[in-house]
Amino acid sequence: MDKAAIIRILLLGSLAFVVAMAWTPLWTKFLYKFKLGKQIRNSGNTPIFSQLHAKKSGTPTMGGVLIWGTVLALAIIFNCLSILWPSSFWGHMNFLERTETWLPIGALVASALVGLFDDWLDVRGKGALGGGGLTIKHRLAIYTLIASIGAAWFYFKLGKTLFTIPFWQSFDLGWFYIPVFIIVIVATAFSVNETDGLDGLAGGVLLNSYMAYGVIALMMGKANLAVFCAVIVGALLAFLWFNITPARFYMGDTGAMSLGITLGIIAMLTDTAPFLLIIGSVFVIESLSVIIQLSSKKLRHGKKVFLSAPIHHHFEAIGWLESKIVMRFWVIAGVSSALGIALFILDRMI
Amino acid sequence: MDKAAIIRILLLGSLAFVVAMAWTPLWTKFLYKFKLGKQIRNSGNTPIFSQLHAKKSGTPTMGGVLIWGTVLALAIIFNCLSILWPSSFWGHMNFLERTETWLPIGALVASALVGLFDDWLDVRGKGALGGGGLTIKHRLAIYTLIASIGAAWFYFKLGKTLFTIPFWQSFDLGWFYIPVFIIVIVATAFSVNETDGLDGLAGGVLLNSYMAYGVIALMMGKANLAVFCAVIVGALLAFLWFNITPARFYMGDTGAMSLGITLGIIAMLTDTAPFLLIIGSVFVIESLSVIIQLSSKKLRHGKKVFLSAPIHHHFEAIGWLESKIVMRFWVIAGVSSALGIALFILDRMI
Repeated sequence: MDKAAIIRILLLGSLAFVVAMAWTPLWTKFLYKFKLGKQIRNSGNTPIFSQLHAKKSGTPTMGGVLIWGTVLALAIIFNCLSILWPSSFWGHMNFLERTETWLPIGALVASALVGLFDDWLDVRGKGALGGGGLTIKHRLAIYTLIASIGAAWFYFKLGKTLFTIPFWQSFDLGWFYIPVFIIVIVATAFSVNETDGLDGLAGGVLLNSYMAYGVIALMMGKANLAVFCAVIVGALLAFLWFNITPARFYMGDTGAMSLGITLGIIAMLTDTAPFLLIIGSVFVIESLSVIIQLSSKKLRHGKKVFLSAPIHHHFEAIGWLESKIVMRFWVIAGVSSALGIALFILDRMI
Repeated sequence: MDKAAIIRILLLGSLAFVVAMAWTPLWTKFLYKFKLGKQIRNSGNTPIFSQLHAKKSGTPTMGGVLIWGTVLALAIIFNCLSILWPSSFWGHMNFLERTETWLPIGALVASALVGLFDDWLDVRGKGALGGGGLTIKHRLAIYTLIASIGAAWFYFKLGKTLFTIPFWQSFDLGWFYIPVFIIVIVATAFSVNETDGLDGLAGGVLLNSYMAYGVIALMMGKANLAVFCAVIVGALLAFLWFNITPARFYMGDTGAMSLGITLGIIAMLTDTAPFLLIIGSVFVIESLSVIIQLSSKKLRHGKKVFLSAPIHHHFEAIGWLESKIVMRFWVIAGVSSALGIALFILDRMI
């Protein structure tokens, strides 16, 4: 492993934490001042959910801006410093680079802006559903659009066509790489979005996933990508500190959508998408529960499998404390990340 | 790194989780049947603590038996299998070995038995304080006794005298190694014990510490020690699952004392005690808060620094939810463990 990379990871990760912590009070004040609070949907489709979460109406959303805002600021600042003083200490801290981090950072910011728009619709109460915000169909369309741009970049610009199944071999997918790419990104974004429903849940699980991908990128020698993951981890930590129950704010779509899409892109960039199923097992469980619930409602004349979906609402409905659900999911996420890293190392040894 | 070691870590860690999960219902039933519940002390010295925790009186303690019981059972079973069929698959799973794991496992079980006796005193309401259990002085004496045995083993049997300061050099301490060893063990045991005061707190923080030491042992080529850490992690996970708020049981002294002493011994065995200050930063904060509080009471005529010590009770007293404190401490523990591993790697590279 690369010594300089580890030092950069520690320094920039810590800096991201400090920076995000520093502007948290400003952002919180702004959110509360303009009453950018979450609307709890009451569309009739999800009665149990609406009932359980009525007390949360009004807590500000858009906390995710803290995360991607910090990442974007650090990326730009250190890129400028590296152009001005390329051989200085600060110049070496740059992590913005064409093959490794242009696309993840671009996707992070682009999807964050779309998410911000969605959050704004939600807050203003304008949108397809009663409570505001985009519908699932709209979301999927937007994910697909962003994923297509990413797929085109990977296929045409970076010339990627290989997809590796761990413990087996790599397959040259040709142009078929594009739909596979889109599916991975859309599935990840959808799953992360569904997970974002309890105080600290998505934040804590994402923290584990990005930590795992930081380690994987580092072991692959992709130092800039590893630093990028570390910066996200640092900023996420600051966010999570205030998102822990009772949450001062939520990440909103500007957080969940952007971090989900970026996670999928990092998985494709490191050609480790199958490991994402393990590292992000909580996301997989959450979105599977939604798919099962919707399919069951459709195919079985409205009969439900879970009291409420995604599955964390089911556990709420059967009486688990919110913090119990979140802690147990964190534990699962931590173990899954460790397991994913261990399998990644094993796969490279064989 | 060693491929076989990683596979053993994954297999035995998972097995420990499954085994501990399997006998949890039996143990829980036993604890509830014989009403082996915690007594909340009301000695007059800690009025705020007593008030906050009155509702917890009656929840069974001694859940720590699940952890060390599982570790001991697996160690013995696989040791027997390796003697019966040395070259079989199961024979290779043995992790009981003289230089690496005899002492940690011996210390784990010995201190667990002492802790069990203490828990029994506590439950029966017999002890120096009104509520039962050992006093701090008794505890420190017991820790020192166990640590002395360990120190003798390290100094006379293993011939250890070196103590390494990271990023600097190793020092040959000669016989002075013995008091240093005792201080490390006693300090760790005391700190872990003080941390064990909220649902899921000590368990979650210990999980992170043992994970970190598993990685460190693996990187040092101490495969058996790494497997031992993994087995503890697996068993701790099962314990933690039910210890998360609202806790079905507590680990008790049989858990906190044994896991604390063992953690200190692993740090000495890997000659990484200074890293334990980082990896176990939560333990350091907790015991410092107790020392500051007691010193202040003594030196400043009873004036307190914290509303209640250890510091997690201070946060309770100022109105934080129990789960908020635990989650934030988990986050600190996770980051500290990652930081500790990163610094360990950096130290080895220089």
